[in-house]
Amino acid sequence: MAFPIRLFKYSTNGPEDTTPLDRLRTEEGFEADDVLAVVGKSEGNGCVNDFSRTLSSVVWHSRIPPTSIAVFSGGTEGALNPHVTFVVKEQGGESTGVVALVGRTRKFEPEEVGSSVQVREVEKTIKGMMAEANLPPSLVHLALCKCPLLTTSKISSILAKGLEPITTDTYSSMGSSRYAAALGIAVALEEMSGSDEAIAEGLRSGGESWSARASCSSGAELDDCHILLLAGEPHEVKPLPERKRLGISSGYMKDAIDAQALLAILDPIAAQGGRVVQVFVKAEASPSGLVRNKRHTMSTDSDVHSTRHARAAVGGLVAGLTGDTAVYVSGGAEGQGPPGGGSLTVVYEVA
Amino acid sequence: MAFPIRLFKYSTNGPEDTTPLDRLRTEEGFEADDVLAVVGKSEGNGCVNDFSRTLSSVVWHSRIPPTSIAVFSGGTEGALNPHVTFVVKEQGGESTGVVALVGRTRKFEPEEVGSSVQVREVEKTIKGMMAEANLPPSLVHLALCKCPLLTTSKISSILAKGLEPITTDTYSSMGSSRYAAALGIAVALEEMSGSDEAIAEGLRSGGESWSARASCSSGAELDDCHILLLAGEPHEVKPLPERKRLGISSGYMKDAIDAQALLAILDPIAAQGGRVVQVFVKAEASPSGLVRNKRHTMSTDSDVHSTRHARAAVGGLVAGLTGDTAVYVSGGAEGQGPPGGGSLTVVYEVA
Amino acid sequence: MAFPIRLFKYSTNGPEDTTPLDRLRTEEGFEADDVLAVVGKSEGNGCVNDFSRTLSSVVWHSRIPPTSIAVFSGGTEGALNPHVTFVVKEQGGESTGVVALVGRTRKFEPEEVGSSVQVREVEKTIKGMMAEANLPPSLVHLALCKCPLLTTSKISSILAKGLEPITTDTYSSMGSSRYAAALGIAVALEEMSGSDEAIAEGLRSGGESWSARASCSSGAELDDCHILLLAGEPHEVKPLPERKRLGISSGYMKDAIDAQALLAILDPIAAQGGRVVQVFVKAEASPSGLVRNKRHTMSTDSDVHSTRHARAAVGGLVAGLTGDTAVYVSGGAEGQGPPGGGSLTVVYEVA
Amino acid sequence: MAFPIRLFKYSTNGPEDTTPLDRLRTEEGFEADDVLAVVGKSEGNGCVNDFSRTLSSVVWHSRIPPTSIAVFSGGTEGALNPHVTFVVKEQGGESTGVVALVGRTRKFEPEEVGSSVQVREVEKTIKGMMAEANLPPSLVHLALCKCPLLTTSKISSILAKGLEPITTDTYSSMGSSRYAAALGIAVALEEMSGSDEAIAEGLRSGGESWSARASCSSGAELDDCHILLLAGEPHEVKPLPERKRLGISSGYMKDAIDAQALLAILDPIAAQGGRVVQVFVKAEASPSGLVRNKRHTMSTDSDVHSTRHARAAVGGLVAGLTGDTAVYVSGGAEGQGPPGGGSLTVVYEVA
Repeated sequence: MAFPIRLFKYSTNGPEDTTPLDRLRTEEGFEADDVLAVVGKSEGNGCVNDFSRTLSSVVWHSRIPPTSIAVFSGGTEGALNPHVTFVVKEQGGESTGVVALVGRTRKFEPEEVGSSVQVREVEKTIKGMMAEANLPPSLVHLALCKCPLLTTSKISSILAKGLEPITTDTYSSMGSSRYAAALGIAVALEEMSGSDEAIAEGLRSGGESWSARASCSSGAELDDCHILLLAGEPHEVKPLPERKRLGISSGYMKDAIDAQALLAILDPIAAQGGRVVQVFVKAEASPSGLVRNKRHTMSTDSDVHSTRHARAAVGGLVAGLTGDTAVYVSGGAEGQGPPGGGSLTVVYEVA
Repeated sequence: MAFPIRLFKYSTNGPEDTTPLDRLRTEEGFEADDVLAVVGKSEGNGCVNDFSRTLSSVVWHSRIPPTSIAVFSGGTEGALNPHVTFVVKEQGGESTGVVALVGRTRKFEPEEVGSSVQVREVEKTIKGMMAEANLPPSLVHLALCKCPLLTTSKISSILAKGLEPITTDTYSSMGSSRYAAALGIAVALEEMSGSDEAIAEGLRSGGESWSARASCSSGAELDDCHILLLAGEPHEVKPLPERKRLGISSGYMKDAIDAQALLAILDPIAAQGGRVVQVFVKAEASPSGLVRNKRHTMSTDSDVHSTRHARAAVGGLVAGLTGDTAVYVSGGAEGQGPPGGGSLTVVYEVA
Repeated sequence: MAFPIRLFKYSTNGPEDTTPLDRLRTEEGFEADDVLAVVGKSEGNGCVNDFSRTLSSVVWHSRIPPTSIAVFSGGTEGALNPHVTFVVKEQGGESTGVVALVGRTRKFEPEEVGSSVQVREVEKTIKGMMAEANLPPSLVHLALCKCPLLTTSKISSILAKGLEPITTDTYSSMGSSRYAAALGIAVALEEMSGSDEAIAEGLRSGGESWSARASCSSGAELDDCHILLLAGEPHEVKPLPERKRLGISSGYMKDAIDAQALLAILDPIAAQGGRVVQVFVKAEASPSGLVRNKRHTMSTDSDVHSTRHARAAVGGLVAGLTGDTAVYVSGGAEGQGPPGGGSLTVVYEVA
Repeated sequence: MAFPIRLFKYSTNGPEDTTPLDRLRTEEGFEADDVLAVVGKSEGNGCVNDFSRTLSSVVWHSRIPPTSIAVFSGGTEGALNPHVTFVVKEQGGESTGVVALVGRTRKFEPEEVGSSVQVREVEKTIKGMMAEANLPPSLVHLALCKCPLLTTSKISSILAKGLEPITTDTYSSMGSSRYAAALGIAVALEEMSGSDEAIAEGLRSGGESWSARASCSSGAELDDCHILLLAGEPHEVKPLPERKRLGISSGYMKDAIDAQALLAILDPIAAQGGRVVQVFVKAEASPSGLVRNKRHTMSTDSDVHSTRHARAAVGGLVAGLTGDTAVYVSGGAEGQGPPGGGSLTVVYEVA
């Protein structure tokens, strides 16, 4: 089902801080029950041993409705601010300009993670969500997906079945799962062909097929994929006079320093007097080892993981161009934008 | 003495890579003997145990004239590209639009590092350099200073004299030395009062007095301060017809995401069809723990040092706005720009 | 009150894993209500942003009685195994050979953290616990203390009162609080004089006064000090025939590689056919920069914090000598053993 | 050729410190020309971007004879002391009890690194060295090998030839090269079969075939393998009366906390009044994720590389048992001892 929504964001004092719910109530008049999704940045390393992400998941899942989803992405490197974004159902279901849909795939067997089965299930779930809401793919500007990873015990269970795991490296399984989810999104949103050949080729190529609207993150705390779609409203919007209208745009950064991609979205918003509510962007170290033909050192730094470098750099750029450090910059962009770049979505408000 | 100069920059393949000298010769026709200064970014952590900086110093000092200086700043986090910038004397001493002056203070006793003695010596040296060249302070847009730090053995020698070291922490001495040098620059360039009271107050306040044109870095490999001044040419410039004219501008970032400060310099350059040759900028984690009133986590991250975070974020912004990752982003901005911000200088070329 | 106790330890699958309570029940027949204390090692960095510690605290405090205490120490570097040790009341209050006492100080004002007030309150609380149980200081072999630290907001509140905080650095406040608690323990256990002069001198010297039986760790989640004492039973022990007798010994490592200190405790246990149940040891990088007159690099490594190095090294040694990686090796040993060394307590079981 | 040798070791003040050569001359009467090999621990991270290793190589190769070798292993985590060990030719070629042989393979094509070609060349070279010196494999207690790795440009050149590189990950190529070298050593020292099948199976199994006497490290600064063999003297030794006799023993640690393996070598040395001169040991995180059936967290720590953890832990144990922190603990033990353990050699001196 597609709900007209509002978006509110609040800084947090730590991964365990749920006081933003109080501000949502007192400042905006919404209750925890109105929350469709909490999408947050927590301040861990964003990698395998990021316990800030687990801590946020634990405290938030006990506060929001069981059908709602909590997606936490670890890592607020550089100037980034730990925060949460609430996606809440508009009161009375009045039009706002942007709708949200929340869904889940079935649970995956460990050996399915990162495989074409995951691609197809994500595709099927998103297509089902859009069909039920009568929403064309072209209106969807963000498909945010939280997906499972392979823990050591899941890898053992695959081996015990006599099957071959996609990888025996826990960290590397995070990328495989993100990539399979991204391909499923790309097919569902008609950004790539859904033929078996195309998917097989996509999985083989490891990053050359991609969606400009996918934002995926992996975690150990779930076995299915949790999906949030943000889309423009299919019908003409007549917001209540006292409320502002929301808009949503998307694009993609072609590399980690692609200011133009951001400005191409931000400038028209500014031109109509709008205010940016939230930027959702993916970041990664260019697999070629180069940014605009010059060497970067993100992938040869054995002290700091490349995803941390990439979030810090892209975060600095996005925060600089928006004047806001509470932006959703997420690392690990396999299939979510072109190699070395990342998907990009902006939600904004106009008078 | 003030030499009209050219600026050339080249990416490096590693801290020990001096092949850019070959390119300087074959591509631009300059020899190692023409080099007044090598200013480089090497790919270590930029902190106490950054051996990339030492390695670069070792290999470069054996290649350039003994009176020339090599300033290496460690840390190419995020998208940044390890590179060197050559400041070379223009052939025939012809005007170019920008002049360089190179100088050194006397060597410091360990107990003088970070003290008012260091402030006064840096001030005196810069004033002497400007006076000899008949250059007014207002024309100087960058004072780059490499200064000593306190090693464990220097701290021991201070204690052996019965004196009190400014700090017993090696890392912290890097900041004290940078700050004292920055105050000396601020006084010499008439950015702050040179009274004893003002200097004492500056040293006490720890960062509230500052220069918008200072860029200082500390290293264990020297006992004096090495200084490079870049300034606009005092006389009208008539460059040779086949060469382009250089220009230089400066300002400061008021915080780590101050895109406007950069654009205020870059936009006029673009308007006159100019090309940015190099950006020199300092970066630091805001000591208040906030960027534009929102919490950052650079100073509470016990895995990655705050200077690494700051370089990555500011580097992402500067590279995004210039389209170039080979920019000189240096961490540790005590007294070099306002707290949480940093000094900013741009050298550019116009037809 | 002094309870005869049993000690059981279990590996954990992650900081949020409370399944050891199930094993305690099914394997040993004890309930969560029997737990006096949970003392655990969780797998974060053990520094300021260790969210594994917070996560463990959150999940465990909801499982044990409100008067019981949970002390988690972050950091299982090297071969160390994340685990929890349960201190449980023996069934029927029968003698076991070792008793435990649990207590708390009053809550501290922020400005009291790290001061002589904290020293005196810890001293007073421990003396009160021992007096109530009629237990002489000489029988106490371990005083485990969890103590508050200064968060950014606590520092602000001190400044708002016009007072001087002991430090404005959050990380450094962890050490100050540990040290004050350690001095309080040293006085209560009669390891140092309790005169005002001795305490003032101890606070001034920063580490030269110490207790061989103190083990302190700081955390942001409490405002008072939580204290666990482990002591030999004051009366002769007649354990039930089907249960084994417990013993407890203590000493101190004089430096990070002091195998002899460990062997001096382990050898007599082995000689009587005993089995080591748990080793509690503190570790730190020698402040002199030397171990047995040779330079170490723990304090000049800007990539990995010195406490992480120290835990890994001491953990390797203790695990090697005991054949067990689930040992309690805790970092930050200010006043808990001599500088560069650490307090050391072993609980063992004999037939 | 096999030279009777002496072993001397000295702490260094930093990676660029070659002053130990002065001490070698003044304290022991040996010149740089007598040095067959310098085997050192430098204080970087021991991983891809360890510039301390490069810096040490640069400064040392300019000081020792061109036919001599310098093997630097990065990483002095925990209590370990940065130092160098000199292997010098005994004056007059008098017997000492231990001989050294130095050799090099031919240079490898990039595509040969990590392949059976590298295995065979290492095998052939060592067999040739032993044959020329008439030395049976059983007398060799340490085969120290420095081998090449795949840089980004080498990987590109392999791809340009239309060949498949063993890995496209620079870091991972370090392990592949170490492993191939270790297999070559295992075959040459008759620790495993040299059949094509055995080598193919060894390369396939990734670590299950191993040598108890191999110690390999990779570096970007060479294209061939540099090999140092230390062996017991084949003939009866009659040392000069004023010199002490050297001895050499080897074994292997079966896991990272295998104190018994060390004691089995150290106890007999102590029993005959000997003095340990140097311990050479390899360390790695157990690939199973377990040490003695308990989980370790070295491989899931995204902040600190597992080789750093392993060196710190094993270093703590070895330093504790020998009372000396200047021991050669090297990380990355693929094929150098059993999985999770490491090869172990001790050189000692007896009156």
